[in-house]
Amino acid sequence: MSTHLERLKERLARITDLDAVRSLLGWDQQVTMPPGSNAARSHHLATVTALKHALFVADETGDLLEGAADEVAGLSYDSDDASLVRVARREYEKLRRVPESLMAERARVHALSYEAWVRARDASDFALFRPHLERVIDLTIEYAEALGYEERRYDALLDRYEPEMKTTQVAAVLAELKAGQVPLVQAIAERGRLVDNGFLHQEYPDQAQWEFSVQVLKDMGFDFTYGRQDRAVHPFTTSFSPQDVRLTTRIRENDLTWGLFSSIHEGGHALYDQGVRVELGRTPLFDGASYGVHESQSRLWENIVGRSRHFCAHYFPRLRKVFRKPLAGVDVETFYRAVNKVEPSFIRTEADEVTYNLHIFLRFELEQELVERRLSVADLPEAWNAKMKESLGITPPDDTRGVLQDVHWAEGLLGYFPSYTLGNLLAVQFYNQALKDMPDLTGQIAQGQLLGLRGWLRANIHAHGKKFTPAELVQRVTGGGMSAAP
Amino acid sequence: MSTHLERLKERLARITDLDAVRSLLGWDQQVTMPPGSNAARSHHLATVTALKHALFVADETGDLLEGAADEVAGLSYDSDDASLVRVARREYEKLRRVPESLMAERARVHALSYEAWVRARDASDFALFRPHLERVIDLTIEYAEALGYEERRYDALLDRYEPEMKTTQVAAVLAELKAGQVPLVQAIAERGRLVDNGFLHQEYPDQAQWEFSVQVLKDMGFDFTYGRQDRAVHPFTTSFSPQDVRLTTRIRENDLTWGLFSSIHEGGHALYDQGVRVELGRTPLFDGASYGVHESQSRLWENIVGRSRHFCAHYFPRLRKVFRKPLAGVDVETFYRAVNKVEPSFIRTEADEVTYNLHIFLRFELEQELVERRLSVADLPEAWNAKMKESLGITPPDDTRGVLQDVHWAEGLLGYFPSYTLGNLLAVQFYNQALKDMPDLTGQIAQGQLLGLRGWLRANIHAHGKKFTPAELVQRVTGGGMSAAP
Repeated sequence: MSTHLERLKERLARITDLDAVRSLLGWDQQVTMPPGSNAARSHHLATVTALKHALFVADETGDLLEGAADEVAGLSYDSDDASLVRVARREYEKLRRVPESLMAERARVHALSYEAWVRARDASDFALFRPHLERVIDLTIEYAEALGYEERRYDALLDRYEPEMKTTQVAAVLAELKAGQVPLVQAIAERGRLVDNGFLHQEYPDQAQWEFSVQVLKDMGFDFTYGRQDRAVHPFTTSFSPQDVRLTTRIRENDLTWGLFSSIHEGGHALYDQGVRVELGRTPLFDGASYGVHESQSRLWENIVGRSRHFCAHYFPRLRKVFRKPLAGVDVETFYRAVNKVEPSFIRTEADEVTYNLHIFLRFELEQELVERRLSVADLPEAWNAKMKESLGITPPDDTRGVLQDVHWAEGLLGYFPSYTLGNLLAVQFYNQALKDMPDLTGQIAQGQLLGLRGWLRANIHAHGKKFTPAELVQRVTGGGMSAAP
Repeated sequence: MSTHLERLKERLARITDLDAVRSLLGWDQQVTMPPGSNAARSHHLATVTALKHALFVADETGDLLEGAADEVAGLSYDSDDASLVRVARREYEKLRRVPESLMAERARVHALSYEAWVRARDASDFALFRPHLERVIDLTIEYAEALGYEERRYDALLDRYEPEMKTTQVAAVLAELKAGQVPLVQAIAERGRLVDNGFLHQEYPDQAQWEFSVQVLKDMGFDFTYGRQDRAVHPFTTSFSPQDVRLTTRIRENDLTWGLFSSIHEGGHALYDQGVRVELGRTPLFDGASYGVHESQSRLWENIVGRSRHFCAHYFPRLRKVFRKPLAGVDVETFYRAVNKVEPSFIRTEADEVTYNLHIFLRFELEQELVERRLSVADLPEAWNAKMKESLGITPPDDTRGVLQDVHWAEGLLGYFPSYTLGNLLAVQFYNQALKDMPDLTGQIAQGQLLGLRGWLRANIHAHGKKFTPAELVQRVTGGGMSAAP
């Protein structure tokens, strides 16, 4: 006679399989699917989403969760089994309030809306995307209402990405950052004109860039036996188990570092997923503690490691060997300064470390206005441009470089953007702790030895998967709370 | 208030979605999946298979089928709705006898067994595959017993690929062919030594071959907006809807025609799937009438069209423009004779038109012995080699070129091989009919105008999807029955 816990595990394993399948449908949609196949794909996504939801929120899951909760009552908080029941239960209590039909409709609409966004962005024509986004916003509001919240409708959405976090907390952190960063950006921008990064925009052949990125990923410890790198318009990482982790990148032949840092960034995400203990792979504890914690890993690798003097010391001479002509006469210090140039730009994903958070703040504000119906989708482009002018002092010349630049809203990912900035903060906190624990870390990086850092991150962060909330994890790793100060 | 038919359609649409998802999991496994990810993938396949099966064989489906059968009673036999109910009901009656756990276990075991087969084949070591195949055979027997049959256990399996066809019928057709072909092979083989096809095995760069195959596929009318071509070790075609059809090929740089004819062959399958009326796409009527009818399309394009004088007349001059050096001094007649060379060989997929059926006959006999427990898996390699000697007069030098060459058994596809030979026969019958209807057909082919033939196939065969049994379809198209004589 099997226990409740055993039966719960079997049920959750199947549910996790469906999540993996849904991720594959999404990966394929962005990486390999033929252009005309999206209508069918939207049905596939809707069906899998609905079945997964129905299996998860069924009364039987609730009964098993209750029974299992009794069975694990004596286990330590940190144990796999106690964590599984705790985390699944929290999720169950939320999702059971959402009707299956709404889940299916969201999946279907997001697939179609994604395609419309691609078309609109290519044509730089917001009007093509507008009716889709209106539908997305309607369904998002319906979803938030179903999930429920105490103070703000946006809380319900935020909680999907940052468990237990409130809008007011995020607003406070972002406001503090903004207050410090707007003048900083202005000050740096004036000085930054001195940095000439024109050499980064010579001709850098695609294939050589690709191979270089693969080598850096291998140095980081990304295991190609259990993952792959592909190309996508909007780079992302997804995974179907700790043994099948897929990152994507995008290479521009007139830009040496765009593709490279994109690979390093996504590589940070990918290492997280490959590092989750394989025993957690077919459970709801697979994946990161939150989107913010996930982003901390990509930011840590991209900005703190990848753009550091130590990293440049090792990799720039190697870049110069591959790209002799465009890098002739460039020295490592010039390279280091060029890849750290601060300059207001239209595109978030191309923004430097400092202006990046201002991009996030803009989206965070607009999202709240959209889901609280204070801003209509029709007025969104204008509102976007006004805020760009206010915070970064520049006005996008077209929608592609403005309101249409991000894929998130097309996919219904409202409430997600704050995770990027939380990720920036956590990256610094985690890295500082790693430095404390490994005094030789920068020396290792300067030798191209990146596996020490990966080992530390794996042991302290990756291995746990989703067992702990972001706050719990930060406490375990750093001994303190989340903080914007560092 | 929706009718039974409407609710049935909605239910079957979801079930069809799960079939599509399962196909994507399989495509990804063979085309893009990282090497270490198979254990997780086997669970994904098992879960989706089990859920699909459970949804389909549920009592609710049976109730809807019964209700819908009353509602469509007045419709013509050929109508979409009557056909949907008829075909789905036949399938329901069969599959409801198979337990969900068996379906899931089969999917899981086949995924693992596929991986073991790849390893065993690479190492040319049957022992690595043997325990997996034993498990596959056990589950296949269990499956056949659950499905049920009147005369032979093998009937239950055969029926999955060729609805309503019996082992004795297949045996009779194959015996007739074999009797005629063994002496023919011997006679031709002696004369065939005169044909020098050495020029086909010069250096033919991969990329140029790839581009040529893409052009031929376009000429055939394969629509890359709704499909793609990729590379796979064992070329195959799969589809997730008529709007997402994916063929694979494999190019060898020392062989001009292997990859090309592989693309044309798979292109024949792919045209079938793209040609199913889109209204049938999200129903169980999507896909071909049977595996044999499907194979008739690939055989027709590969052998009857692709290896014809007319086809060579148009494409050989174009090949010679691309591959100037290795084809210097070769004329179209030499090329035509080289691509039609008949010679006993170890590998089925490389066999010429004539010896091909002998390969099938061997597998058909061995499969029956395996599922009737007259032959053990341990004794299989020896039995294979003995039969090769008997029918083709050659003995495979190793398992890779012998018992390990085909993927089918690894994937549990026992009962499938006869479809290849039926496909050969049907290809001739269909092509003869097309010639009658389009007297100018060979002239068109000689001009590289292949869309006329595609149009005829689409209207007469593809568009119907799975509405008719193979026998019904042959009757409709040719006005007679299936026949080996042509």
